[in-house]
Amino acid sequence: MPRKKEKNEATADSLARIADRVKQRLRRFFDEIETTPPSPLFETQAGSIVLAQVRDLTLRSGKRLRAALLTAGAALFDPKAEESPSVLDAAAAMELCQTYLLIHDDIMDGDTIRRGAPTVHVALGGFTGDPRKGEALGILAGDLASALVQILLSQMPVAESILPRVISIFSAMHLDVVCGQGLDMLGEVSAYEVAVHKTASYTTIGPLTAGAAIAGARDKDIEHLAQIALPLGVAFQFRDDLLGTFGNTKTTGKPSDSDIKEGKRTALIEEARAKADRYQLKRLNEIWGNRDATESEVQTAREIMVMCGARAALSNHIQELTEEFVAGLDRPYYTTSAKAFLTGVAALIAERDA
Amino acid sequence: MPRKKEKNEATADSLARIADRVKQRLRRFFDEIETTPPSPLFETQAGSIVLAQVRDLTLRSGKRLRAALLTAGAALFDPKAEESPSVLDAAAAMELCQTYLLIHDDIMDGDTIRRGAPTVHVALGGFTGDPRKGEALGILAGDLASALVQILLSQMPVAESILPRVISIFSAMHLDVVCGQGLDMLGEVSAYEVAVHKTASYTTIGPLTAGAAIAGARDKDIEHLAQIALPLGVAFQFRDDLLGTFGNTKTTGKPSDSDIKEGKRTALIEEARAKADRYQLKRLNEIWGNRDATESEVQTAREIMVMCGARAALSNHIQELTEEFVAGLDRPYYTTSAKAFLTGVAALIAERDA
Repeated sequence: MPRKKEKNEATADSLARIADRVKQRLRRFFDEIETTPPSPLFETQAGSIVLAQVRDLTLRSGKRLRAALLTAGAALFDPKAEESPSVLDAAAAMELCQTYLLIHDDIMDGDTIRRGAPTVHVALGGFTGDPRKGEALGILAGDLASALVQILLSQMPVAESILPRVISIFSAMHLDVVCGQGLDMLGEVSAYEVAVHKTASYTTIGPLTAGAAIAGARDKDIEHLAQIALPLGVAFQFRDDLLGTFGNTKTTGKPSDSDIKEGKRTALIEEARAKADRYQLKRLNEIWGNRDATESEVQTAREIMVMCGARAALSNHIQELTEEFVAGLDRPYYTTSAKAFLTGVAALIAERDA
Repeated sequence: MPRKKEKNEATADSLARIADRVKQRLRRFFDEIETTPPSPLFETQAGSIVLAQVRDLTLRSGKRLRAALLTAGAALFDPKAEESPSVLDAAAAMELCQTYLLIHDDIMDGDTIRRGAPTVHVALGGFTGDPRKGEALGILAGDLASALVQILLSQMPVAESILPRVISIFSAMHLDVVCGQGLDMLGEVSAYEVAVHKTASYTTIGPLTAGAAIAGARDKDIEHLAQIALPLGVAFQFRDDLLGTFGNTKTTGKPSDSDIKEGKRTALIEEARAKADRYQLKRLNEIWGNRDATESEVQTAREIMVMCGARAALSNHIQELTEEFVAGLDRPYYTTSAKAFLTGVAALIAERDA
């Protein structure tokens, strides 16, 4: 299907272009902090190491999906959104916001690898020679990234009538995603609830609506965009869940047995539990959450997930969720180019391998 | 001096009145979250425990100095500031901001007692039966408080032209205080630098200027207020340093030997090191930072600090710093009542026992 391939390439090109501009903006932002330090902390050796960790993690990201969705959210209403300095600043703030969340999540979850390198608290533990101090400095690094998000937003060149809405969207997103992490850690709710609050909140809903707000969209339209962004965000998380067990470690950069061994509550395991027969369920429960499971046992768990139809059902569900988003884009006053780009992004989200 | 006593009582009355209103506002804010949960997290058992910790720590505060300074900062320009809902919201946000900072600082510093009760991460460790999980949930609780600050600010009923400045002041304060905590932890700079960035930033500068901004003060006046607020904040920290070694445990609620035993870099020890003779310095260095120091050795360290003149010099310095603030208040367009209140607060800061 050359047509589909062309479309995919156009989407990938746009994504790469936005990612590049946002990376440059972020680099400029960090350069300014290093050139004109807003605090003597950054003039100390240890302080520069903490800042460098925040900078490196932020610049190390590849796809910049959130920045792209924020830009596209603005472009739905303003065809020149990609050239807008305030859209660029907000997109950069979204990426920094992710830095903040990832740093703290990695401490809370005890993760050691992020974006192909040691997590911030592990790296800082290495520098100080003390893992506990690394965690303390990691909390600080996350708080620093969080403060920098607010600095970027407060300096964003937007009209006075626009800023309150953007701030309001970022605040609601902040609350939602922090609570989502809580839901994930405390494990009292379904994978769907976690996907809504931990992932969709700041992967699709926050970025798309913040972009729309900057472009001057009406409350009604922002509300609608939040509604259709939700299934897209859930699809993103569910695809993540699929890749966590069926992904190729080379492309995902993550082990494909850890979800099973750690007994992570994913949409995939929920689907499998609902679909498995009694024998399959018994076997699955023996393997799931067993840190000492052998590779052959993990493979058995994977096979059960395929045989009982869980994998296929989740794939279909992801497809439906992204279609729900694309159908919602069908509004005459959305710009054609942004609709096309977002349709492409939805397809990438549903089919991504990384 | 009955005159002085009367003035002190008037200041104490105003402080108590503001503290009471802010506490009620905060209680209402938390009640709303519990009645209409903005996230399913608060409907889970574990989630409500985390929220209750944030709530309890916030409501447990006594003096509410920051809320009072924010209110007074507005009252300098607007005699009716105390009745303003936006001033009240911002004052409540300031208190929540302190909650956020205290929760994270206590994890970073490994502190176990705060405001007369277990620190949040220690309490959460108790609930979960796992200190590590307590720390993870403590990070989450701090992030939650931080998100709630932004929710309160974004919903504050102020004019569109006012909000950007308030947001800008809160952002700068956020960055400054986080970096101040970094300076304190990493210990590469003087006690003065730490006092400026860790304490003055969010104890006096942030509150006074945020209040002024809400009351519609001009940039020039906000700038001036930030300048005079700085010595007041440093005085607050230096008084804290004095109380850390010479305070009465019953009134301060803190042990009076921990600064010495932990070898904390305070203005007091810096002053003592500069003033002590060779013998005194040798003895001081043997005791300071020695966790196993006996009560008699700690007492020796205290005596050296008195004999070499460090205690008196620091007391004088605190007096000078607060006078610098009071002298700066002498502007004809500041309201008389707010000037009187702030003069009283400055005296309380310089002489406080708790």
